Amino acid sequence: MAVMKIQKTPSIRRMPTYLHKLVEMQMEGVPFVSTTQLADYMNLEPIVVRKDIGITGISGQPGIGYKTDKLIAAIRRFLGWDSVIEACLVGAGSLGSALLGYDGFENYGLKISTAFDRDTAKIGSYIHGREIFDYKQLPELVAQLGLKLGIICVPAPCAQAVADQLTDCGIKAIWNFANVSLKLPEDVVVQREVIAGGLALLSVKLGQQNSLINAEEKNGN
Amino acid sequence: MAVMKIQKTPSIRRMPTYLHKLVEMQMEGVPFVSTTQLADYMNLEPIVVRKDIGITGISGQPGIGYKTDKLIAAIRRFLGWDSVIEACLVGAGSLGSALLGYDGFENYGLKISTAFDRDTAKIGSYIHGREIFDYKQLPELVAQLGLKLGIICVPAPCAQAVADQLTDCGIKAIWNFANVSLKLPEDVVVQREVIAGGLALLSVKLGQQNSLINAEEKNGN
Repeated sequence: MAVMKIQKTPSIRRMPTYLHKLVEMQMEGVPFVSTTQLADYMNLEPIVVRKDIGITGISGQPGIGYKTDKLIAAIRRFLGWDSVIEACLVGAGSLGSALLGYDGFENYGLKISTAFDRDTAKIGSYIHGREIFDYKQLPELVAQLGLKLGIICVPAPCAQAVADQLTDCGIKAIWNFANVSLKLPEDVVVQREVIAGGLALLSVKLGQQNSLINAEEKNGN
Repeated sequence: MAVMKIQKTPSIRRMPTYLHKLVEMQMEGVPFVSTTQLADYMNLEPIVVRKDIGITGISGQPGIGYKTDKLIAAIRRFLGWDSVIEACLVGAGSLGSALLGYDGFENYGLKISTAFDRDTAKIGSYIHGREIFDYKQLPELVAQLGLKLGIICVPAPCAQAVADQLTDCGIKAIWNFANVSLKLPEDVVVQREVIAGGLALLSVKLGQQNSLINAEEKNGN
């Protein structure tokens, strides 16, 4: 697995949130959006929003802002979400089921075409309208559908074996929800989702807020 | 809700991953850990790891590295995870259930003490060993347990009402998994979890990988 340098990680992470808001505004018929509006929504400084949007290559009109539809298109193009990528999901436990039930992914360029599990109680059942297939059928179905993206939602001890299986079948990108670092071939990209990462940010904010309150109390405010 | 400036967001997000690995190493009896070992595990450049660890205030010994237990303590202290914070969770659907089933939170300073739902089919049932309480009991139980952190896993249209209820009950930090921007009092901190943020990063990596492959093909490699 190559060490790839991703610049502007926080900006890229924020793109789906901009997109979500912009699509909402587009549906409400809002033709233009200003940096200030987006900054209010994102709870960010306008300068940060301007920089975030800047990396998509679009520029706004002074005093007017961005054309809503053009900004949506620019973000989608930047992320490669202007066409939908099909994915398979492995592990239909509670997290896997939550992802299968998330109806916003198609706005984000992702379609989970097929889901697999090893549990005979789950195989053949439907979760959020999607059939769960036997994990043994994975090579056949991934090849047949020409899938390039795999989502791993199995317990950590099984994740490497699933990743190996997926890459053997031609998967080139893995979204890993298992709490483990995967060893992958050079030409496969991976994103490890660490749910506690957000908790770390929240904890630091809470700590800062508490220090602020303590300081104010000391100052008699 | 105050706009709080969090510096080094990606570094903070990575802290739980370092912690996970370090706790594993501690259990294996590894007394020292080097930047290179952590860089290999994290798939990052050593300089990035050094900077990440630097913000916790600990410094390593040249040629030896960090004492495993001291580094664990430094990260926990930095995040405020040296004592466990108790939280309530609202919305025991598939995502809420997945969070209730996640057994790693206590390592991350979080204990989900109680969970609520409005669905009578869920109230009184147990999910991953935890009883689901009636949402109506939230004010009473949050006060009784003195909880300060709330986790919102309800559908987006209900999230603001739940957030209002939580803050009315004295909750000071909200971990928001609903796909909506919450309006909160100045003294309440929030972390919005956007699952598609990781997908955006993966998509950009995949795009870069594809450009690389195309470039190599053009160059006849």
